[in-house]
Amino acid sequence: MRLLAATLASLSLLGASLAHANQAQGTTGENLSLTSGDIGRVSPALEKYASGTIQEDLWKRPGLTPRDRSIVTVATLIARNQAVELPRHIALALENGVKPAEISEIITHLAFYSGWANAMSAVAVTKEVFVQRGIGADQLPAASPQLLPLNETAEAQRAMGVQQNFGQVAPGVVQYTTDILFKDLWLRPDLAPRDRSLVTVSSLIASGQVGQIPYHLNRAMDNGLTKEQASEILTHLAFYAGWPNVFSALPVAKSVFEGRPS
Amino acid sequence: MRLLAATLASLSLLGASLAHANQAQGTTGENLSLTSGDIGRVSPALEKYASGTIQEDLWKRPGLTPRDRSIVTVATLIARNQAVELPRHIALALENGVKPAEISEIITHLAFYSGWANAMSAVAVTKEVFVQRGIGADQLPAASPQLLPLNETAEAQRAMGVQQNFGQVAPGVVQYTTDILFKDLWLRPDLAPRDRSLVTVSSLIASGQVGQIPYHLNRAMDNGLTKEQASEILTHLAFYAGWPNVFSALPVAKSVFEGRPS
Amino acid sequence: MRLLAATLASLSLLGASLAHANQAQGTTGENLSLTSGDIGRVSPALEKYASGTIQEDLWKRPGLTPRDRSIVTVATLIARNQAVELPRHIALALENGVKPAEISEIITHLAFYSGWANAMSAVAVTKEVFVQRGIGADQLPAASPQLLPLNETAEAQRAMGVQQNFGQVAPGVVQYTTDILFKDLWLRPDLAPRDRSLVTVSSLIASGQVGQIPYHLNRAMDNGLTKEQASEILTHLAFYAGWPNVFSALPVAKSVFEGRPS
Repeated sequence: MRLLAATLASLSLLGASLAHANQAQGTTGENLSLTSGDIGRVSPALEKYASGTIQEDLWKRPGLTPRDRSIVTVATLIARNQAVELPRHIALALENGVKPAEISEIITHLAFYSGWANAMSAVAVTKEVFVQRGIGADQLPAASPQLLPLNETAEAQRAMGVQQNFGQVAPGVVQYTTDILFKDLWLRPDLAPRDRSLVTVSSLIASGQVGQIPYHLNRAMDNGLTKEQASEILTHLAFYAGWPNVFSALPVAKSVFEGRPS
Repeated sequence: MRLLAATLASLSLLGASLAHANQAQGTTGENLSLTSGDIGRVSPALEKYASGTIQEDLWKRPGLTPRDRSIVTVATLIARNQAVELPRHIALALENGVKPAEISEIITHLAFYSGWANAMSAVAVTKEVFVQRGIGADQLPAASPQLLPLNETAEAQRAMGVQQNFGQVAPGVVQYTTDILFKDLWLRPDLAPRDRSLVTVSSLIASGQVGQIPYHLNRAMDNGLTKEQASEILTHLAFYAGWPNVFSALPVAKSVFEGRPS
Repeated sequence: MRLLAATLASLSLLGASLAHANQAQGTTGENLSLTSGDIGRVSPALEKYASGTIQEDLWKRPGLTPRDRSIVTVATLIARNQAVELPRHIALALENGVKPAEISEIITHLAFYSGWANAMSAVAVTKEVFVQRGIGADQLPAASPQLLPLNETAEAQRAMGVQQNFGQVAPGVVQYTTDILFKDLWLRPDLAPRDRSLVTVSSLIASGQVGQIPYHLNRAMDNGLTKEQASEILTHLAFYAGWPNVFSALPVAKSVFEGRPS
């Protein structure tokens, strides 16, 4: 009987926490957020790890700047569709020096690398943060800006490889990959190629896309990401994407590192 | 300090966008939805891709009918548990010719191929769409309808393979796979086997289940899906499930295509 | 035109079901939940599977106790970030004999094995369940309790292997893995190592982390999980994490079973 209740009725899509949220929202008109004390009411240990290990240790490690850590974290949350954590981390990213135009481009980039719906969830959240901070259209990238120059040789090589492998399998994918991704998205100027790679690699690791890491980690390092920074992305993501995703990425990263001229 | 706030308190499970939603809902009594202008307030580029590339190009490509594209999209959203995008796409699916009974069966099918909780989220959303459109019990499939005839030979071969491989590992899985999936779910008459395969293959690609694609893509083509349609599913999913999932599926699809008699 | 509406505006992050929830909450002040009848309004078949196959058959199979099944189910929902199903299943877990301190530790454990954001979503939900049931700080594990004794030999061997493989790739990951996971988290006394393994293995299978299953399934069996129980976890997860995740785990489980002394 209790099983019937639990199994059949377990979709409280908007259950306890929502009811609570509505009350909170109704009373204060402010966003609900989980305080340190709230965490402690379920797990004093998590409260300790949060304020100690993550805040005082992880985010202060020298391998990545706070700005880079914010980009990695925001990309991870969007890639994993955890929009509920986004408002605070987008606010933190702005404080850590990520520009509104860069946040806009991160979301645009992940529409293609994480799926359209993930970007839409991020848009809904970010729209509010931008309104609250008075960030308007003048701070956003143009829909069709002057693109960065294309590295014709590298792009021709990439396109040829994909065409040879998959031109007969899915010509539509091959065409869009060239036209929309590599001759358009990657050349948009408001997010530097190195940062675009940072977003891409973070999202791949964070969503378990191991097979796509080699190409993009190499591209990231071609775009200026150092081995030390790549290594530290893995450390940061252990906390934000979970240990298993990082341990699945480690052998791939090792292979990429070893395959590059030192 | 700001890190403490950001890290500890970042769970605004019902944060900015919810507060906004409550206001919107409270004022109008209508569903909140993201307009084209909302997208533009975060990313004019995404607005351009949405109205241009996706609406005017992707959905009009000849490889798949709008009805098929709706089935692929709805299956993808359920498989990725992005129920928030479902209301509009279930409405669009109905307009594109997917019957209410077929939507019911898509959700039922994905309870097993994407996990029970994904189906429950989809039920919560779809229930509202059905109420709004006056879709009642008379348009839904029976709980226990007359099943389609079983292909005894193919099923015996499938069951034997699974039993030999995994009968000693997880006899419960093997038994339920036969009894609930292949002698029941797949034979339910209100979703054609070819469409059931379309749902299954889409959900596998969309959730990165690469290892399960070969069996089900072959089964889909046995059920009438053409190579051109399978190819176009990959193109459609590049946008809705993200490029990495599709690039991980491409070599598998290539191998399946090459392994079939032409 | 309808496509524009559907594609652009499909982010009803707080759409139909939320509007409904607000009404329900406003009227009754109680949590919304999906009843058996609600499921039947979309899929009479799902209603039948829920009350028959899942409730009357799966949960009553002898291979795992109801307490173990609750631990597996809760771990699965957290690992897949399906917090919306959590309230009922945390309540059921308490009724099935999982202690509040154990639920606290399950969430803490999964902060590291599923990612921090997953744990935060679970905290938000569980906090409410604990409040409703009067579960206070006296029933929670200490932040820094007396740890269980370390198996020095096994830990030295594990640490050496990871250091040799990945010490040059990501020294930060290697260090945190030792300090935070194996010399701290795994030794926390309020969740038995065997149950901690049950949580870990369930979350790995449920999130498709196939590569990490061998180490942790072996560890689980070293910690007392029997082959029959491991087998039954796979059967239970077929329903809660979907067939494809389980079929991807089956060959790995088979290999682990065969590699152990009988």
